[in-house]
Amino acid sequence: MLKVYGHPFSSPSNKVRYAVSALELEHAFHTVDLAGGEQRGAAFMALNPMSRVPVIQDGDFTLTESDAILRYLATKHKSDLFPGDLMARANIDRWMSFASVHLGQSMGRVMFNRVLYKFIGQEPDERSLAFGLKMIATDGAHLNKVLEGREFVAGDTLSIADIAMIAALDPAELAQVDLSDFKALSAWRKRIMAMAFYQNVHTHFGAELGM
Amino acid sequence: MLKVYGHPFSSPSNKVRYAVSALELEHAFHTVDLAGGEQRGAAFMALNPMSRVPVIQDGDFTLTESDAILRYLATKHKSDLFPGDLMARANIDRWMSFASVHLGQSMGRVMFNRVLYKFIGQEPDERSLAFGLKMIATDGAHLNKVLEGREFVAGDTLSIADIAMIAALDPAELAQVDLSDFKALSAWRKRIMAMAFYQNVHTHFGAELGM
Repeated sequence: MLKVYGHPFSSPSNKVRYAVSALELEHAFHTVDLAGGEQRGAAFMALNPMSRVPVIQDGDFTLTESDAILRYLATKHKSDLFPGDLMARANIDRWMSFASVHLGQSMGRVMFNRVLYKFIGQEPDERSLAFGLKMIATDGAHLNKVLEGREFVAGDTLSIADIAMIAALDPAELAQVDLSDFKALSAWRKRIMAMAFYQNVHTHFGAELGM
Repeated sequence: MLKVYGHPFSSPSNKVRYAVSALELEHAFHTVDLAGGEQRGAAFMALNPMSRVPVIQDGDFTLTESDAILRYLATKHKSDLFPGDLMARANIDRWMSFASVHLGQSMGRVMFNRVLYKFIGQEPDERSLAFGLKMIATDGAHLNKVLEGREFVAGDTLSIADIAMIAALDPAELAQVDLSDFKALSAWRKRIMAMAFYQNVHTHFGAELGM
């Protein structure tokens, strides 16, 4: 059976969980004890020497990197979440990069500096924090404009680009990033978060963390 | 004809140029005058409202985000650089994410703080710089170990993962990131940079910048 290794605090892990849920795949989920250092133990490092979540095991095949996992699972199961058409796929790929290389990185910076550093007793890097907030403002405005014109991130139907994007934006409330001025983006988030595939994982990112 | 918009200072732009070169595609390259603000002009923003390079125009189809462009071009031209097999593709996708989401982001941090900030008269953010260097040390060691066991990043043949990775690492010398302890990684870089597809773009990243 498909096995998914992750942690609720990890947006990339949640991204994979949403995808597995949307694809309705029978699977076992294992929460890696990051606080206890399980990711640096021999068993986990045999799966991913980088000690990072998420990882999947699909039979003998082990795969890391959340975006690669989404593409692999959606392709394997011939899902409309990642259609075979060349241009449709290019457009989805583009928005997945936007989520992972731009918006997700910026949100990560804010999360690190406002939330995670507190847990480990470090002071925030105010300049890095400011840079992250500035990039979220820019990229968020662009995504908002795009979503004024269509219902989903990459077009008229749900795709793995929506799943990647919702996971990238999940930490917003916890990281005190106010997205409410982005009306279309906020409406899209609300729609996605009301969908069964999301609700079946959790009601919202913060809820699972008990915050 | 295929049109590529980029700038020699941009690793993602060079990534696309290497791919176009490896695929031997007839194309026109336009250097976007980033210093002069062309990326914020109406003509360029019609192509990419995010004002970022690279962008390609393939007939009526406009595409941004370097990794999406590599996948699109290699798929369209049925290239062995991105084979159709599910697991081969997943493995390439995995290493492309490793290049863009991890190693490339860290190298970007170092480049910003050691090189680009000087150009715009800003002080480096020492903490962000240190974080970038630490991540390069970790991710570089992992990649080095992988390359001890095989000739190319994702297996026994050249793929778009090698192209993504070489572009991510291109700024190393300019950013004074010493990779020489990573013997297998350094040997791989030397091999890739000696290949015709790379040489046809430039002899090395720094050379084109006149540094």
